[in-house]
Amino acid sequence: MNLIDKLSKIFGAFPGVGPRQAKRFVYFLLSDKRGVTAGLREALALVEKKISRCKFCGRYFNGETKTDICAVCSDKSRDHSILMVVAKDFDFEAIEKSGAYNGFYFVLGGTIPILSDKPEERVRSKELSQEIKRRVPEGLKEIILALNANPEGENTTLYIEKLLTPFKSKDLKITVLGRGLSTGTELEYADPLTIKEALSGRKPER
Amino acid sequence: MNLIDKLSKIFGAFPGVGPRQAKRFVYFLLSDKRGVTAGLREALALVEKKISRCKFCGRYFNGETKTDICAVCSDKSRDHSILMVVAKDFDFEAIEKSGAYNGFYFVLGGTIPILSDKPEERVRSKELSQEIKRRVPEGLKEIILALNANPEGENTTLYIEKLLTPFKSKDLKITVLGRGLSTGTELEYADPLTIKEALSGRKPER
Amino acid sequence: MNLIDKLSKIFGAFPGVGPRQAKRFVYFLLSDKRGVTAGLREALALVEKKISRCKFCGRYFNGETKTDICAVCSDKSRDHSILMVVAKDFDFEAIEKSGAYNGFYFVLGGTIPILSDKPEERVRSKELSQEIKRRVPEGLKEIILALNANPEGENTTLYIEKLLTPFKSKDLKITVLGRGLSTGTELEYADPLTIKEALSGRKPER
Amino acid sequence: MNLIDKLSKIFGAFPGVGPRQAKRFVYFLLSDKRGVTAGLREALALVEKKISRCKFCGRYFNGETKTDICAVCSDKSRDHSILMVVAKDFDFEAIEKSGAYNGFYFVLGGTIPILSDKPEERVRSKELSQEIKRRVPEGLKEIILALNANPEGENTTLYIEKLLTPFKSKDLKITVLGRGLSTGTELEYADPLTIKEALSGRKPER
Repeated sequence: MNLIDKLSKIFGAFPGVGPRQAKRFVYFLLSDKRGVTAGLREALALVEKKISRCKFCGRYFNGETKTDICAVCSDKSRDHSILMVVAKDFDFEAIEKSGAYNGFYFVLGGTIPILSDKPEERVRSKELSQEIKRRVPEGLKEIILALNANPEGENTTLYIEKLLTPFKSKDLKITVLGRGLSTGTELEYADPLTIKEALSGRKPER
Repeated sequence: MNLIDKLSKIFGAFPGVGPRQAKRFVYFLLSDKRGVTAGLREALALVEKKISRCKFCGRYFNGETKTDICAVCSDKSRDHSILMVVAKDFDFEAIEKSGAYNGFYFVLGGTIPILSDKPEERVRSKELSQEIKRRVPEGLKEIILALNANPEGENTTLYIEKLLTPFKSKDLKITVLGRGLSTGTELEYADPLTIKEALSGRKPER
Repeated sequence: MNLIDKLSKIFGAFPGVGPRQAKRFVYFLLSDKRGVTAGLREALALVEKKISRCKFCGRYFNGETKTDICAVCSDKSRDHSILMVVAKDFDFEAIEKSGAYNGFYFVLGGTIPILSDKPEERVRSKELSQEIKRRVPEGLKEIILALNANPEGENTTLYIEKLLTPFKSKDLKITVLGRGLSTGTELEYADPLTIKEALSGRKPER
Repeated sequence: MNLIDKLSKIFGAFPGVGPRQAKRFVYFLLSDKRGVTAGLREALALVEKKISRCKFCGRYFNGETKTDICAVCSDKSRDHSILMVVAKDFDFEAIEKSGAYNGFYFVLGGTIPILSDKPEERVRSKELSQEIKRRVPEGLKEIILALNANPEGENTTLYIEKLLTPFKSKDLKITVLGRGLSTGTELEYADPLTIKEALSGRKPER
């Protein structure tokens, strides 16, 4: 395979990129005069040296020197009683941006599709158990399962709930995010479950 | 204006119908061989005779004989302690279909756009006050404001809350639907408010 | 079936209208205060009296008094040597609006889907033959088949071409619209046939 | 800026990639286990060594050894009498794939936006003139301007036509691609210009 086709194939493996856009990327790099190609090459060369996966939460982070614990997991001012389990680094970012949470995180690294035959290979289950064991003596009281409100997210929630059953006690509870109307939801298009949850979760107007 | 253009203009006033689709409707009716035109004409002729607006909840309904109270408002087995305020007949239908609610309804007949100068003309405020007065002696304890989770819905909620302030008491509370993740919400795309509400509304896994 | 559901079903038969929009139409008419319902009823009542199908070209038209020949077919200043065969009234309108054509029209009233078992019932073939016979003594020299450049349009073109074979002579030719780049076509997205036709139809720059 | 943000910014400069997708690309590469990152790094390292720009047509191509003339420009069996001017490598590919053309190409490397103040910097005008001079003695008789049928394409066509005026002669003509219905065009949606061109370019049915 020639190099143009090879590059197209590589970009075609990127999430959400089809063959046509992949080729467009290649020609973009070839005809680029702003140093994008060189910049990309340099940045990729640094990835191995600079980017680590946090040994506690499992998310990717980078810094001047290679450390193995990320800034969030190192932050002693955070609430040690809560651990939020998310699927991906992206979800971590969305929640941090919301400013609504001050506990710690664990990144599963994926979700479990319905009817998956090897669910244990889809998520970092063993690491999650270890992290919970490590955090219990530090005051962990609640594990929030913060997965997407779609079938794959719910399947993952069920799997993790089962996995964590041995840890459940009156001192360590497992919770899930609240359901209801999310911003933008129109009642007319809301599904019965959302309406039901929004009703059961209704609250006094402020 | 000729009749084809006139019909196009009428259909062009329908919600979500542009001039091109309006014209398509006209030619569809003109070339129709299945009796759609005649059926539509007959159905429209019956509307005035058969369709009423419920004098309690304000929604449209129809029946063999003209009555002025709809089947839901006439149903004595429903929960007289709750009244749900919705914007439109469509929202009523969505909630009925969910099977999650067994109280009564009130249809506002519209919503109040932000910066609307005559909000009182947009919704049936006077009728709402009358209906609440009528329902209090019958055991009304809670009014649920069930508007869309978007700016116009929230603006309407604020307006109705203010309108209903005189009715508020320890025996009559006003609530709004619960916020959180609705079915299909992905955390990655969730806005900060939804995340915040989903977190504060978190609950023990089942 | 109650009247609201009946009206919804009727609107659901309109082209491009799904059940939800159909219901929206119904509530729109029910809550309408601008007289749309009455206007629609009146307009529909006039359709039978006012709208005719031209006995020559077959398109729908209307006028003060019922005549059976439309304004275009009655226009003696038009070019009697050309007849353009189109699928629908809409296509007639698009071509008239372009201002690029001054001959006469014939509306087939439909197109023939691929693998249709009764093609003769899909289009007004008999009327087309009659109209051609009527126009030959009046100077008809060319029949333009102006169908869509998609599979159904091409299938219809093939059917009509076969149908018109007996009429073909050195004095009466049958043509089809030119192919090439249409406004907005980007080469990158153009299919091989379009590129081929655009190449074979290339012409000197102005 | 940290490396994750830097990579996001680089991918965000790719055509059609927004900040969210850029970040998704980064996490995709970080969590990749199939060697995509390494493959991309290696492929990018080869680009400078392996990929050349053809000194005749200006398109990017690659081969085992670095040569400076691409396979198409080296192909003596092609028709030396025609040169097709296209905007981008992508357009070259689309036309080659159509199999409808057997002459040579020249890639402008861009198009000229309407109201562009430095049109000469947008396209490889000087190289085009040189290539034409080189090809005239080899038998060049026609230059086809094959630009998109949109405003930017037409603006570019006008600019190149003016640029090539000195070359025009009875022995060297300049042509543009034919206009008309392209595959998929529906008459109902066709603009007046397309209809006009389709009419003037009509041809006998096969």
